[in-house]
Parts: sequence; structure tokens; C-alpha cells
Amino acid sequence: MLINRREIRVEWGDCDPGGIVYYPRYFEYCDACTNALFECAGLPKPLLLQQYGIAGIPLVESRARFLLPSQFGDVLKVESSIAEWGRGSFSVHHRLMKDGSLAAEICEKRVWVVRTADAPIRFKSAVIPQEVKETFRITVAANTRKR
Amino acid sequence: MLINRREIRVEWGDCDPGGIVYYPRYFEYCDACTNALFECAGLPKPLLLQQYGIAGIPLVESRARFLLPSQFGDVLKVESSIAEWGRGSFSVHHRLMKDGSLAAEICEKRVWVVRTADAPIRFKSAVIPQEVKETFRITVAANTRKR
Amino acid sequence: MLINRREIRVEWGDCDPGGIVYYPRYFEYCDACTNALFECAGLPKPLLLQQYGIAGIPLVESRARFLLPSQFGDVLKVESSIAEWGRGSFSVHHRLMKDGSLAAEICEKRVWVVRTADAPIRFKSAVIPQEVKETFRITVAANTRKR
Amino acid sequence: MLINRREIRVEWGDCDPGGIVYYPRYFEYCDACTNALFECAGLPKPLLLQQYGIAGIPLVESRARFLLPSQFGDVLKVESSIAEWGRGSFSVHHRLMKDGSLAAEICEKRVWVVRTADAPIRFKSAVIPQEVKETFRITVAANTRKR
Repeated sequence: MLINRREIRVEWGDCDPGGIVYYPRYFEYCDACTNALFECAGLPKPLLLQQYGIAGIPLVESRARFLLPSQFGDVLKVESSIAEWGRGSFSVHHRLMKDGSLAAEICEKRVWVVRTADAPIRFKSAVIPQEVKETFRITVAANTRKR
Repeated sequence: MLINRREIRVEWGDCDPGGIVYYPRYFEYCDACTNALFECAGLPKPLLLQQYGIAGIPLVESRARFLLPSQFGDVLKVESSIAEWGRGSFSVHHRLMKDGSLAAEICEKRVWVVRTADAPIRFKSAVIPQEVKETFRITVAANTRKR
Repeated sequence: MLINRREIRVEWGDCDPGGIVYYPRYFEYCDACTNALFECAGLPKPLLLQQYGIAGIPLVESRARFLLPSQFGDVLKVESSIAEWGRGSFSVHHRLMKDGSLAAEICEKRVWVVRTADAPIRFKSAVIPQEVKETFRITVAANTRKR
Repeated sequence: MLINRREIRVEWGDCDPGGIVYYPRYFEYCDACTNALFECAGLPKPLLLQQYGIAGIPLVESRARFLLPSQFGDVLKVESSIAEWGRGSFSVHHRLMKDGSLAAEICEKRVWVVRTADAPIRFKSAVIPQEVKETFRITVAANTRKR
């Protein structure tokens, strides 16, 4: 299973008057980490959309746990991986570590969609190509060998 | 049960290159709606923090479902209410409606905390005063009578 | 000259650990107010883009002055108007008032652009149709008469 | 003159439905780069606030020019430096380069402030200690020697 690791520095503007990370920012961090995970698998988002003719991989569900508050200057180490592949959907699991402890955990369920209407925008899920799923397996193998 | 209703207009800057609301924005909407719910109960956040000597009501968990994409110019009607009161925590339930349909649903589990350390910031949960819980019941009663 | 007025409530998540509005949020407020000004002139952004075949009205310059800090719960009354029309560009002037005092002032110089390339995205300015400029004058006249 | 260099990757969530960076994000980038500049001078913001007993270094003015649009995946190299020291204020100059070209330029005028009131928050400017200004000179000297 391919795991992508990314360091995120908590910025001043990410924090609220209580001095801690304003919680929607954690979801911004994770959205960026999902994109980084795909890029690490050789599928940067622009290529992903173009190559597979999809409109995106929007969220249908998310679950999050926040265990430790973080503040300006903290460095979060985020580990991201695909937790599950479905036919037309998949789950991305993000673990945000701070100084070796789990600070937060976010699980995103996303759908592989094509656009069916423009005004208003409507999507429908499509089947995720097997080769996309394979890419995550092959990359991890290569990754493992490398070390 | 006190329900607060708030209209949120989706702004251009809330949307991503796919033309739909960038999902962390939904959590920003809901955080604002939680504050509005408390204000509706007579407890605007600055008063809440000062009167009860707490550091805040940070999140410990969230669960969200996204059913319909929204885009620039859409108006979301958000209904917010306390779904459950615990000893030192509570859950806020937000339903985001668009043109009469449920577009998203977010549940925030929050904790009533006092600050126990500054660098790094640490919190511990405290007991939610009964009068706070009552406020939400009394206000709803008043609200119901009014109609 | 058409002036659009909009009230903006400073949210908790708009503020930084110092307790005041994180300054990039003022630009978010003003971007939304520019869109509201066009909508007030009968040209909501989606219609504007579609009807005139433009890619947008991106910024080329901005100037801002911040006179008074604002904090959670403050209500800013923003007055927005076109300060100047050029051939292919225009300036929007925003005055953010708090309790009758000028809290901030932002001037955005924007360009009327068409897209000339996709990867990377490139724009070139186009001539702003006279009818667009007129719309802002006619609307203000109607507005003045109404009062 | 101490110059801090920082790479910023444009994220998906930084971009608007037009596919380019939503312009308030540039100010977020620059606020983070100002903090990084101070940190590079040996004055990370928490230390700065504590050591000199100030409430912050909020903006009083900004000027920006946007020359090239940026999009998801672009890497901006930001060069930040103090353009001018005043008695109680200073200017930070940020140059955002993309592939060797100037993409944007932002100048922030900030004030060295102490808090004089809490509700509402009020600040007054204080005199910037000479040693702070020196730090930026000494650091650059050390920096130059190092290379």
C-alpha cells in the first residue's frame, strides 16, 4: 500500500483567536495531501482529470478525530494512503502526527466522477479503471524495494 | 430543541477549479453556524468564553456527508441544533439545504475546555454547567411559543 | 455612480491568534463585494462570463489601507463602487466602515480578459463593452430615483 | 539586507473556478513569508511577541501587482526582505517568481504595536528596538559570509 508522507507547517493564518488551528484548515491540509498522494503514484491531478476524462474526485463522506491541538509553528507529519478501493469510490486515510503522537486522523471517502450537467453542476460516479488501482500497488512495491 | 437557521451564499472564492465548493469551506460554514446557534441561545462566543471561564469549544470529532455539489451563487439554508449533550462534550448537527434538498450534513462533536498549558497549548474538558444546557431548552420553548 | 452596500460579519475563523481579522480575509470580503456590485448592476458573474465571452475580471493591482482592527462579531458595512473605467481595465473602490468609522479601504484594479492559452493559463485584456459601463450608470440613476 | 527565500506550491484549494489562484491567497502566502523572514532573522513570531512585549506586527497598508496568473501545481519562489525601517513601522517587500519571471509583487507596511484596549481591541505603535533592525543586518552579513 502506497503511503505518502508530507510535512505541513502550521501558519499564523491557520490559527484562530484561541491560538490553535482553526479546524477547517485540517481538511485543507488533507485535501492537499490527497493530491500529493496521487502525484506520488504518478497521477498528478491535472493529468488524472485529463487522462481519465473525469471531472474530479469530490468528497461524499468524511470522518475526523482531533486528539491534540496544534498551534503556529508546529510541524505536522501527514501520512496518507488509500484505505479502500470501491467500484466507483475510494477512501483516503490521513494520519497527522506531531512529535511522534497522533494529533488528528481524517478519513475521506471520494468518488470518481464525470460531469453530467453544468447549470447546476451535476456529477455521476464512474468505474475506477483497474490500472489506477494497480498504480498505487506498483508504486508502493517500487517504493519498498528502493529502501 | 433550539434550531438556528442561517442562509449562506456560496462565494466565488469558496469554489475550486472544478467550479464547486471546495469541501473545507463547508466546515467553515458550519463553524460559523455553531457560533450563530450559541448566539441565538443568548450565548455569543465572547460572552460564553468570559462568563464560563473556558478556552473554547474545540472539535474532537466530525462526521460529514456531501450529497449535492454547490457552486457560486447558490444559497444554502443551514439548520443547526444541539444533537446531544454529554457531561463535558456535546454534538452539533448541521443540515445544509439547497432548493429544498439536503445538500450536506455535518455533525461536530465539541468539548467544553479549560486551558491547562500554554506552550504547547493543552486543554482539558470541564463539566458543562446545567444552566447552559437549559438555555437551549428555554430558548426553544420561547421560540415555539412565539410562533 | 452605482454604489453597492453589503454587511459583512466577522467570523471567528476570519481572525488570527492576535484576535483580529487576518488581513487576507479583507481581500476575500472585497472580492465578494465586487461580485455583489456587478450583480447589483444586473450582471451576476456567471452571466457576465457567459454573455461577454470573458474568462474573468482578475486583479492586476491592489492598494489597501487598514485603519482600525476588527474582531469576531464586528459588522463591517462595505460600500463598493467603480472608481474608474479604462479601455480594458477598471478600478473598484471598497470602503469598509465599522460603527461609522472607516476601518479599511481597498482599491482593486481589474482587467477584462479572454483566455488565450490553457496550460499554462494565459489571458489577454479585451475592450470592455460600452453597454457594461452604461449599465452601472443606468442602474445608479434608477437607484437614485427610487429613494 | 537579509533576503529570505521560500518555495510555495499552489494547491488546488488556492484556486478559483477560473482555474487560477484566488487573489487573497497571495496575501496568505506573503503573510507566511513575512513570518519566515523574521524566523530567518532569529525572531520567530512567538519569540518576537514575547521578547518585545508587543501584540503583533499588523498591516496598515499594502500594495500589490499581479503580473502572471498561477494555477494548481505551480511553484512560486518568494523572495522577502525588509524594504524600509521606520521608527514604529516597516515595509516588507515580497517578489513572487515563477519559472524565472516575476509573477506578483506585494509590499506590506506593518506596525510594531502594543495593545491598549481589549474590547474592542485597540493598538498603538511603539518604537522598534534598534537591536531588531540590527538583527536583520547582522544575519545578512553572516549569510553573505556563509556563501
